Amino acid sequence: METVNKDCVLTDNVTIRDGELWFSEQSTLLLAKKYGTPLYLMDEGRIRRNCREYKEALDEFYGNGAEAIYAGKACCFKAIYRIINEEGLGADLVSCGEIHTAKLAQFPLENAYFQGNNKTDWDIEYAIDAGVGYFVCDNVEEVDAISEIAGKKGVTQKILLRLTPGIDPHTYDEVATGKVDSKFGTAIETGQAEEIASYTLTKPNIKLSGFHCHVGSMVFDSDTFVRSAEIMLGFCKLMNEKYGYVTEILDLGGGYGVRYVESQPVISIRDNIREVSEFIKSECEKLGIALPSLRLEPGRSIVADAGMTLYTVGTVKKITGYKNYASIDGGMTDNPRYALYHSAYTVLTANKASEENTLKCDLVGRCCESGDIIQPDVMFPESITRGDTVAVLTTGAYNYSMASNYNRIARPPVVMVDGKNDYLAVRRESLDDLTACDL
Amino acid sequence: METVNKDCVLTDNVTIRDGELWFSEQSTLLLAKKYGTPLYLMDEGRIRRNCREYKEALDEFYGNGAEAIYAGKACCFKAIYRIINEEGLGADLVSCGEIHTAKLAQFPLENAYFQGNNKTDWDIEYAIDAGVGYFVCDNVEEVDAISEIAGKKGVTQKILLRLTPGIDPHTYDEVATGKVDSKFGTAIETGQAEEIASYTLTKPNIKLSGFHCHVGSMVFDSDTFVRSAEIMLGFCKLMNEKYGYVTEILDLGGGYGVRYVESQPVISIRDNIREVSEFIKSECEKLGIALPSLRLEPGRSIVADAGMTLYTVGTVKKITGYKNYASIDGGMTDNPRYALYHSAYTVLTANKASEENTLKCDLVGRCCESGDIIQPDVMFPESITRGDTVAVLTTGAYNYSMASNYNRIARPPVVMVDGKNDYLAVRRESLDDLTACDL
Repeated sequence: METVNKDCVLTDNVTIRDGELWFSEQSTLLLAKKYGTPLYLMDEGRIRRNCREYKEALDEFYGNGAEAIYAGKACCFKAIYRIINEEGLGADLVSCGEIHTAKLAQFPLENAYFQGNNKTDWDIEYAIDAGVGYFVCDNVEEVDAISEIAGKKGVTQKILLRLTPGIDPHTYDEVATGKVDSKFGTAIETGQAEEIASYTLTKPNIKLSGFHCHVGSMVFDSDTFVRSAEIMLGFCKLMNEKYGYVTEILDLGGGYGVRYVESQPVISIRDNIREVSEFIKSECEKLGIALPSLRLEPGRSIVADAGMTLYTVGTVKKITGYKNYASIDGGMTDNPRYALYHSAYTVLTANKASEENTLKCDLVGRCCESGDIIQPDVMFPESITRGDTVAVLTTGAYNYSMASNYNRIARPPVVMVDGKNDYLAVRRESLDDLTACDL
Repeated sequence: METVNKDCVLTDNVTIRDGELWFSEQSTLLLAKKYGTPLYLMDEGRIRRNCREYKEALDEFYGNGAEAIYAGKACCFKAIYRIINEEGLGADLVSCGEIHTAKLAQFPLENAYFQGNNKTDWDIEYAIDAGVGYFVCDNVEEVDAISEIAGKKGVTQKILLRLTPGIDPHTYDEVATGKVDSKFGTAIETGQAEEIASYTLTKPNIKLSGFHCHVGSMVFDSDTFVRSAEIMLGFCKLMNEKYGYVTEILDLGGGYGVRYVESQPVISIRDNIREVSEFIKSECEKLGIALPSLRLEPGRSIVADAGMTLYTVGTVKKITGYKNYASIDGGMTDNPRYALYHSAYTVLTANKASEENTLKCDLVGRCCESGDIIQPDVMFPESITRGDTVAVLTTGAYNYSMASNYNRIARPPVVMVDGKNDYLAVRRESLDDLTACDL
């Protein structure tokens, strides 16, 4: 007795079978029963396919050692680094915590890039000792600190300099990082990028391997990367002409948008990579500079649609003349994205997936806070009640990694689903975990 | 050589001595050196004084067993429960994690109130077994579940019913909880409160001890509590007349505003408690109902001004023609309140506290996210540079308790300062803590 009605929702790993929601090749209800809720699910096969989309397109259209570097801030735990390493991706790491995680997963750190706008001396020392391949160096204080610490250790540290190309990617403010006015990097437009780059070339124990930029997140328009490549290559040309410097690596960062709701567009990573690759090649020829090796830093687009969160409904409140609320056993503690950015999500009732959705409710969490909303104005079956299982789709990015213990609520486990297999990648926090640091 | 110039800033536990910032009776610079940064400081003496302000005013103006119940969601770790217990406060707990914390601190749980809009069966069972005195019961599903679970255990559980008086407290939406349109409680205005209350009276294994409401947070206007008391007492009168029910406990929740910046008003808790106490007494007389015992649930006003966070500056970026940024070694991971609510804070440069502040910078964190702002447009000394110590004031509430490991950044320790003594109340997370749940 297989699949009576199998409709895919939003992505092809989410299907409805006999009125129940399935994820990859498994029943979400059985997974909820086995592991409890709230529960993060991650589709390992989907993560691998997303990795391959980047890798294959970069190999085919760019070559020249081009690499995709997974941005761990989107979702960071040991199993992820095993998977991306097996898929041949590098790692974009933003803290010693992320470096430590990758290290425990035996990730080859020579293929890691240490990002961030503020590295402490302790961070720099830890990362050099760990053998991190590249520092993506944000500012002049960091250039000085790396040079000094690497000098003391008698090593030469490879770095990329983070620059801001002055691109406004038409995304929301919280995630627009490539504008001139940004805490990140050094602006090309103001001449400060040239200053820091030429200064860096004079510093001992540092090898300047190239330049990095990152224009923002949730970028859907395909020309954003082309525009930032154009500005970055113009800067490479200037550095070549004025200082004889040859850029080995050009890192254009990440930021491809992901589809959270049906109304958002589907992006072809392959087409985008072809477009930007062709542009860079022709532009380098036009400018008469050597083709740098390309790096891209996908995070969200590797893991977002590989994720789903399952919750159990606790109460459905119908306030006569006002609004309805469905409360679940998780909330802004495991998914703060609506609280922070008013992010859109697709929500389904996993055990009533084929029922008509006629009851509009705000889907709210269990925290003692009115802003604890997962998604407003969700359509549910009229019969929704305590004990029902609700699924929030596309939660693979910036959910587990942003989770908190607000209200001293334990963080959910992450279960990897791969076809018919499933395994625990991150265990559920216990009550004793919550008090582990209390003295 | 004591105190040359001793100016108090915002609250009297924050002073400037010889150009350095002091907290309670200690140099913040010595504390930063001893424990490292980022660092949460909590002034134990201030917490105790805040507790006493509530307790003494309730004893003096209300009597009749009135109690203040500390709302742990503002700041929850073991040492806090030891302190509030010694000061004779009860505990408002919102999760099994908070119950577990209080239990480990030997807090007498018969004096605890289990809050929250969505308690699972597991939560209810855990809390009954732990001996939690009162459930603040949010909805009818919970009434049924408590009755059933208490029945199986052969016990009678005392509860308060959470009602929404329909008060708009003129605060920001994320923390306005007493409106009719709220995920919390049951509305009086719609008649649904009477329904759930009369239904509860018919249920076995439940003792209805009274009613609870909570109108919101950061409430500065003194009449908000009087207005909600008026509506709640009207409801008590109705329950008395129609059902012969006598309300033993009236819990008006929390919500007194706290002063984060000089421009905000100073609230006299004592005056407010006197005002609301006098109102309730005269109103009960007017309505001809018995005076219920009063509960108030201060959270923020117990701990906020007992807190301060210390950071180290990593880079100061001056973007010609745009803006300046000072980046610190913490951020939205240890204080997400600006990211979530655009909250105001007072910021000082601890090691240059007497220098003139002429350089305007956004104070930003170290997370890979543009929204990672602690406070925009802060005035700093012109000389601010890597290595300087920055203090953010009034961080005792909703900082540690809301902290995350986003970017796999470790949460800072909490150091209790009490006059000239200091001790670690929560230790700093280690890199191994960050991966403790990774399999």
